[in-house]
Amino acid sequence: MAAARGSALLSTAAILVIGNEILSAKVVDENGPFLARELRSLGVDLRRIETVPDEIPLIIDALRRCLASARWVFTSGGIGPTHDDVTIAAVAQAFGRKVVADDRILSLLRESYGDKLNAARRRLAEVPEGALVEWHEGWLFPVISLENVAVLPGVPSLLREGFLRIRERYRAAPIFSRALYLSLGEGAIAEHLDATVATFGNVSLGSYPRFDNADYRVKVTFDGRVEDEVRQAVAFLQARLPPGAVLREE
Amino acid sequence: MAAARGSALLSTAAILVIGNEILSAKVVDENGPFLARELRSLGVDLRRIETVPDEIPLIIDALRRCLASARWVFTSGGIGPTHDDVTIAAVAQAFGRKVVADDRILSLLRESYGDKLNAARRRLAEVPEGALVEWHEGWLFPVISLENVAVLPGVPSLLREGFLRIRERYRAAPIFSRALYLSLGEGAIAEHLDATVATFGNVSLGSYPRFDNADYRVKVTFDGRVEDEVRQAVAFLQARLPPGAVLREE
Repeated sequence: MAAARGSALLSTAAILVIGNEILSAKVVDENGPFLARELRSLGVDLRRIETVPDEIPLIIDALRRCLASARWVFTSGGIGPTHDDVTIAAVAQAFGRKVVADDRILSLLRESYGDKLNAARRRLAEVPEGALVEWHEGWLFPVISLENVAVLPGVPSLLREGFLRIRERYRAAPIFSRALYLSLGEGAIAEHLDATVATFGNVSLGSYPRFDNADYRVKVTFDGRVEDEVRQAVAFLQARLPPGAVLREE
Repeated sequence: MAAARGSALLSTAAILVIGNEILSAKVVDENGPFLARELRSLGVDLRRIETVPDEIPLIIDALRRCLASARWVFTSGGIGPTHDDVTIAAVAQAFGRKVVADDRILSLLRESYGDKLNAARRRLAEVPEGALVEWHEGWLFPVISLENVAVLPGVPSLLREGFLRIRERYRAAPIFSRALYLSLGEGAIAEHLDATVATFGNVSLGSYPRFDNADYRVKVTFDGRVEDEVRQAVAFLQARLPPGAVLREE
């Protein structure tokens, strides 16, 4: 278990969503759920999501916590030329770096804007000193990262494209997942879940009741890095439940 | 501004979403966006959303941070009889309270389950010592709160019903919001946004660019507690922009 836990820590992530527009309900965040799905499919354990305002001290505080709790950190939002775009400055400060102009971005901005390259547009070239600025063919914007932090734009289409260009570097051992759909409520199965949890330390069990007209009452999920352990845990629980309790397995 | 800031702090909130199912992308969280919309319509400033696993130390840590950063805290999820339902224990520990059985819930459970009232079902009666357990007519479950923390269930339909029963206690001064839709990009307007931000300290401006086929390039939002200030800020920015830049105001 120690080994499994150690290797699991190597493939953990945290997401930091930056933006007053999410907190003020002007926009429903799509980036957290998108990254959660992607990370899951890559076998990466997502450990936390924090959504904070466009305020440097709060971003730094959350970023430090994300870095302490996971290997990979993804920020969403706060990139751009306006007053509310403070993510680059916050990431730089969190690592004790200066904000500097990236030469290549700056020269592309000069080409693009000519004498209309004002102070605001120059901000698009700003990166934390020492950041990795990656260009990918056929794509106008670079992906900016600093150590284990990928700094992604908040506009969902841009975030998706940026992430898809770098996603393979995060691929880890796959997570196997099974689910049992039960006709019994949680109160009837809790002791059997406890026994399963106690027996299979490397398998993570979840129990999700329904109170609507679904054709089952509880969905029990089993997640683990070792497929055989997951299957054994499913069989272990199933064997303890009364006949007819399991409606289906997925 | 000090006074405005003081009163604003009185109507701030934080949301703590508890659940491995969100982080593992089995479920997309509906409760954070629902509460964000509700709080906004009540005039409450949402300061942060944290999504953490079903792990007591992480819940306590996040809860303390939420309490330090906002007046009202809402937890979502982790309520129930199974091994992954640890929110009540975490809230109790965060306040240094014991977990105790609520007499009324226990007696209702006895009526309902009779001699099938096992240890798991008894957990449904557990609350932090000193918690407020509120029953509302026509509703089977109570809303549990401790000081400024409302402990809401994770099942979206239950969370919504629970919140709607208590929502009026959070009502604050309304937030006025206006938006300008612009034909110019962020690089062309940033200096004017900066001037507006510098002039109207009590109005919060947001700038949201589009990179798709929308009929505008940037939406600028203005939020504030004083309607007249918000309108003045809109007029101030509008007066600085070139003719034709504003496509519409909402």
